[in-house]
Amino acid sequence: MASKNLSKDIEKIAPSTMADVVETRLREYLKRKAFKPGDALPKELELAEALDVSRNVVREALSRLRMLGMIESRKKRGMVLAEPDILGGFERVMDPLILDQNTLQDLFELRLVLEMGLADVLYTRMTDKDLKELEQIVGKEINKVQKPFKVKYEIAFHGKLYQMTGNETFMRFQNMLLPVFEYVVSEEAKINGEAKVGKVTHRDLLELLKTGGPEDFRQGMKEHLSPHFERMKR
Amino acid sequence: MASKNLSKDIEKIAPSTMADVVETRLREYLKRKAFKPGDALPKELELAEALDVSRNVVREALSRLRMLGMIESRKKRGMVLAEPDILGGFERVMDPLILDQNTLQDLFELRLVLEMGLADVLYTRMTDKDLKELEQIVGKEINKVQKPFKVKYEIAFHGKLYQMTGNETFMRFQNMLLPVFEYVVSEEAKINGEAKVGKVTHRDLLELLKTGGPEDFRQGMKEHLSPHFERMKR
Repeated sequence: MASKNLSKDIEKIAPSTMADVVETRLREYLKRKAFKPGDALPKELELAEALDVSRNVVREALSRLRMLGMIESRKKRGMVLAEPDILGGFERVMDPLILDQNTLQDLFELRLVLEMGLADVLYTRMTDKDLKELEQIVGKEINKVQKPFKVKYEIAFHGKLYQMTGNETFMRFQNMLLPVFEYVVSEEAKINGEAKVGKVTHRDLLELLKTGGPEDFRQGMKEHLSPHFERMKR
Repeated sequence: MASKNLSKDIEKIAPSTMADVVETRLREYLKRKAFKPGDALPKELELAEALDVSRNVVREALSRLRMLGMIESRKKRGMVLAEPDILGGFERVMDPLILDQNTLQDLFELRLVLEMGLADVLYTRMTDKDLKELEQIVGKEINKVQKPFKVKYEIAFHGKLYQMTGNETFMRFQNMLLPVFEYVVSEEAKINGEAKVGKVTHRDLLELLKTGGPEDFRQGMKEHLSPHFERMKR
């Protein structure tokens, strides 16, 4: 009987595919009907009936949207549309060990682009208090090449720069990118030896912030990051 | 009886909370055990037993990871860890209508930072073919201030710049940011009238790419975007 092998000859539609479809359908529906944060969603059962799928599949799809912060449950009101966390999904997958090489390289470069681009926002927003705090961070740096220290100071210094932009999304984004950046640098070091360090130090960058303008700072940052830019050209 | 009102006095643990916990637990487990793409995951039932939760909750949590591209189902092998899509979660929530004002402003500025930072990668990678294509894009621009046209040309020109960096993540990221940017600009226009246009045009930027260096291009870009930088200072 031909039908005996049918399940081998024709691929099953995986349950995941169904959740994918329902998830997409729900997002389209919310967008088309211009749902705004706070608006109540139809109940799970109603959605299942309208979509003609099982409640389990609807629950799966809703759970995905809940993870992204797009919906939340409110007492007595049921599910409502919420203001999503823009970086939540990004944060969850930002693990160097599971990202492919191309993506790691892309993120490495993305961080370079951000560092080179931040000067204008930085100069618009930074305060004297910020500069004092940055001074303290630079003061704590010891000229040791020991790896764990180096990374710690990198995070402290560059993290503070991003904080000084007053842009929270930007700051979080950078905090997620930095571990990937350090990972790429250290993997590279295993093959080609330790990366050289740019001539412009954190202290030099601080002085530029105090006395120079965005262009000076940018030139300093480019020199500070020059070993990484060199790496990119290879 | 006091217990009669207990369900009113003590808040139920929402099923969503359970899926949150299981999702986090699973991600920690995968990370701690250093799962690599292609590694097979325990079965749903085993996970449910080990976590002492229902299969439905495990299925929900797994569905979330599947959405992020972290796991996928393979024939005969069951679930395996996969290389996630770094921007998938971001893409799903990038809707100006549901993001809060602070996040919209953050993303607006993030795009300015990216535009200002891209010169170095751009000059490292761009080819003559790229410049010819950019020439064609600029050639099609008509000096009409009509809105739909303007946005279309903005997307074509700036999108091409990002493509020229050869960085796919960067390009996709920018493509997601641009609609948010345009939204913020058009909302602003409703209040304060049309934004002014920077003196440096797309054609000027193209000339800078052909004959200048990264610094010249960056100065040009800053002037091109100057109305938006002005807006930021207010």
